Parts: sequence; C-alpha cells; structure tokens
Amino acid sequence: MTQAGSRTFALVVEYDGAFTHGMQRQSGLPTVAGALDLALSTLLGQDIQVVVAGRTDAGVHARGQVVSFRTAALIDLRRMPVALSGMLRESHIAVLRAVERDADFSARRSALARTYRYRILNRLAPSPLERGRVFHVGARLDVEAMKAGAAMLVGEHDFAAFCASVPAGVVTRRTMTSLAVERDGDMIDIWLTADSFLHHMVRIIVGTLVEIGRGRREAGDIARLLVPATRSDAGFTAPAHALYLERVHYAEPL
Amino acid sequence: MTQAGSRTFALVVEYDGAFTHGMQRQSGLPTVAGALDLALSTLLGQDIQVVVAGRTDAGVHARGQVVSFRTAALIDLRRMPVALSGMLRESHIAVLRAVERDADFSARRSALARTYRYRILNRLAPSPLERGRVFHVGARLDVEAMKAGAAMLVGEHDFAAFCASVPAGVVTRRTMTSLAVERDGDMIDIWLTADSFLHHMVRIIVGTLVEIGRGRREAGDIARLLVPATRSDAGFTAPAHALYLERVHYAEPL
Repeated sequence: MTQAGSRTFALVVEYDGAFTHGMQRQSGLPTVAGALDLALSTLLGQDIQVVVAGRTDAGVHARGQVVSFRTAALIDLRRMPVALSGMLRESHIAVLRAVERDADFSARRSALARTYRYRILNRLAPSPLERGRVFHVGARLDVEAMKAGAAMLVGEHDFAAFCASVPAGVVTRRTMTSLAVERDGDMIDIWLTADSFLHHMVRIIVGTLVEIGRGRREAGDIARLLVPATRSDAGFTAPAHALYLERVHYAEPL
Repeated sequence: MTQAGSRTFALVVEYDGAFTHGMQRQSGLPTVAGALDLALSTLLGQDIQVVVAGRTDAGVHARGQVVSFRTAALIDLRRMPVALSGMLRESHIAVLRAVERDADFSARRSALARTYRYRILNRLAPSPLERGRVFHVGARLDVEAMKAGAAMLVGEHDFAAFCASVPAGVVTRRTMTSLAVERDGDMIDIWLTADSFLHHMVRIIVGTLVEIGRGRREAGDIARLLVPATRSDAGFTAPAHALYLERVHYAEPL
C-alpha cells in the first residue's frame, strides 16, 4: 500500500542486545523495533512501523541489522543517523546509515541472505572487558575438528535438528552459503551466512560445534543430524550474548 | 625484605576500568590493587600487598597490567588464574597468568617499558556495542597529519607539556620508543610505548593528536611543545574510558 508521494527508506542499525527483549514488538517490553518505531514517528510526525530484516532473539546483538519504512515526510538522509542515534542513545541503539530504496523494497522480503557471527573466548580466565560480548569456554577447543563439522553443514540441507521449535507447516530446508571457524589467539569466531535462519539455528549449530571441539561428539556426527533429525539429537543452545547479526545481503548493497 | 623461604610471583591482570577508582589504594573506594590484595590475602591466608607496574587512572582499562608479591605459602600456579578470576569476578578483574620470578623481581622497578593503546571511533554514529570502550569522534580525522605529529614525539624528550601536574623535583624527560597511529575502517588505534609515562601523558598526547587530526593545530606544532612547554600549550585531555594498558615489558617476558 504505497501512498501517493511516499518513498521507501532503509536504515542500517547497531544495538547492544543486553538492553532489549529482542527485535520484535512485545507489549510492555523494550524491543529494538518498538524503539525505532517511536523515534521515527517522533522525528517524522507520523505513525511509522518498521519492517525488520532479521528477527534477533532477546540478548542477541547487531552490527548490521536492517529495517525499512515508507514515508511521505521530508527526510534529510545525511542528518538522520546522528539525529536518530541521539534519540536512541538510552536504548543502546545507533543508526549507522540511512539510504533511499525503490518503492518495492522490504528489509525482510528483499533480503537475499544474512551473516551472523558467534564469538567464543577460549582461554582459562574470563575477560572482564568482553563480558556480555563473548561466550567463555575454559576447556581448549579443537578448532580443526570444529572446521570439519562446519564444512558438512554448508549447502542446502534440512536443518530441523537445529531448530528450537518447528511450527506446523514450516519448511526447515535452508541453504548455508558459508560457515567459517577461525581462531585468532584466544578468540574463536564462527561466521555463518545462509538465505535465512530457523529459530535458535545459529546457537544450536554453535553448541553442537563446541561439543565437537571438546571431543564429546565426532565431527562426522553432523551427517546424521542432516538426515534430518530432531532437536534432541543436536547439541546445546549456545548463549545469546555472544551472537551478532553482522550483515544483511541485498541485490544492491546498502 | 625477603623472608626465609618466601618466593616472588607475578600476575598478568585484565580489568574493566569502569568499575574501579584507579589502580592505587584509596580508603573506601574500590581499586584494582585493593581487590587483588584482598583476594590474594584470602587465598593465601596471609596479608598480601601487591606491587603494581602501571598506575592507571580511574576509568582506564587494562589487558596486560602486571603486579608482583612475595609469599612463603604454597601456590598452585596453574590453578591460580581460575581461582583468583572467580573471586574477582564481581570486581570486573581477571588474572590471565601467574608466574614465578627471581627474588629481586618487582612489577614496578623491573619494568623496562609500558605499552598503552588508545581507541578512537571515527564515524558519524556512536557505537552501542563499544560504549565505554572507545572515544567517539564524529568529525573525520586526518590520520596522515596525526601520524606526522606522532612521529615527532618519538625519542627522548621533555614531556612536561604533556603532564597534568608536575610535582616539584620530578624529572619530565621520557623516552618514547614508538608511537603508531593506525586506521582500520572507522577505528583509529594509537599505540604508545615508553619507558614510563607522566600523569595523564597518554591522554594529553591523544587530545593533542586529535586536535591535529581535526585541523585545529598543525602537526609541526608538536616541536614547540617539546622545547619544553607548559600544560596549557598542549591539547585537551582525552577521556579515560578509551585507554588500555596493553603490556608491561621486562627483560624476561611474562
């Protein structure tokens, strides 16, 4: 329902997931979408409800979340990041870029893929400076075994075993474009790109890879989980606070 | 005063400066040294007062602070980081490594040099995920000019202009071994290594370099500040929360 004279805009958004109850609107709880709706409605003087690219869970961070909205109001794209970031400061949300898109652009429907990063601190001592930012695993992880397991997840598969709860009728096939496990000193970064992700899919994949890294599960075990299998066959759900939505991919980059 | 049978130990320590009132003991205020004294005294069952390598100001973080102490108590060096980090968790302090040194080792007197890092986020929007970790400068900084200014600070100079307050009789000559300004995307990291640093010296150097980066001061101006000059000739004091004590250097690396 494009109004006469209305234009479509996209925002690239960063936030600290510790301060929100997830991306989606919930009555009474602070959410990123709710905070953006309020700031945009105040700034533009009309009711705005943003469309969200990635429905991040409570506690999950974003460096490159994308939202879109339509408005006929006059918009100064250059001023928008600073103005909105100032309004959203106490919500721990910042707007990094604002761009205009074609009328039929939707942050969700137009997205071709999403890239998430999961950060593991793998050393004996925890890190006060990275608290709430990384998942601390004291036992030494075998990154080569984790890489072997990760490689088997790349491609088109039925990821039902890596989904917290599958609603009736939901297709659980997804295409994992890339899944990289990288060690840099004490940090292990896991980068995942797929067309879209099921509920808790990244965190269950990470939990399963950590079990492989600790030697509690064979890398080859992954093949059995893609038969498909059920949730209880896969590993634990890694904590939300070490997960970052890094980037949403579109035909025309933002 | 080495006791019979006592041995000397060094700890490498990380902490979040937001939660302390600096490194040095102050009655009634939480300090890193005070918290370490208490944890070690509890663990070892005797009164311990640590010697500190770098006297960081309130708000300044550390990834590689070093402290030393002597004890005749039995110590399990392998268990110590986990045990102490657990006790110090609510103080936002972690012990990364514990090693034994020669009897005459002192974290302060034996230190040959200190390396600090200062982190500047140079983009329009602030970063919720790096809040309290970086100094946000919205205006584009000219890193080449900052590098030119930084190069003039390397070597042995009288840094009196870069000292918050010079107590009577204190020598203000220091040797800056290296001073690197590096841009990586929106982040500018300034790395400084010197034999030792005067009060607020890193933060005044950074403030002066930021003024150069903003075009408010010529890079060549640095020469005039090393004549020497007085505090009011140099730039502003950059905030503490973006400064990190990264490493203390000894003849034998820790």
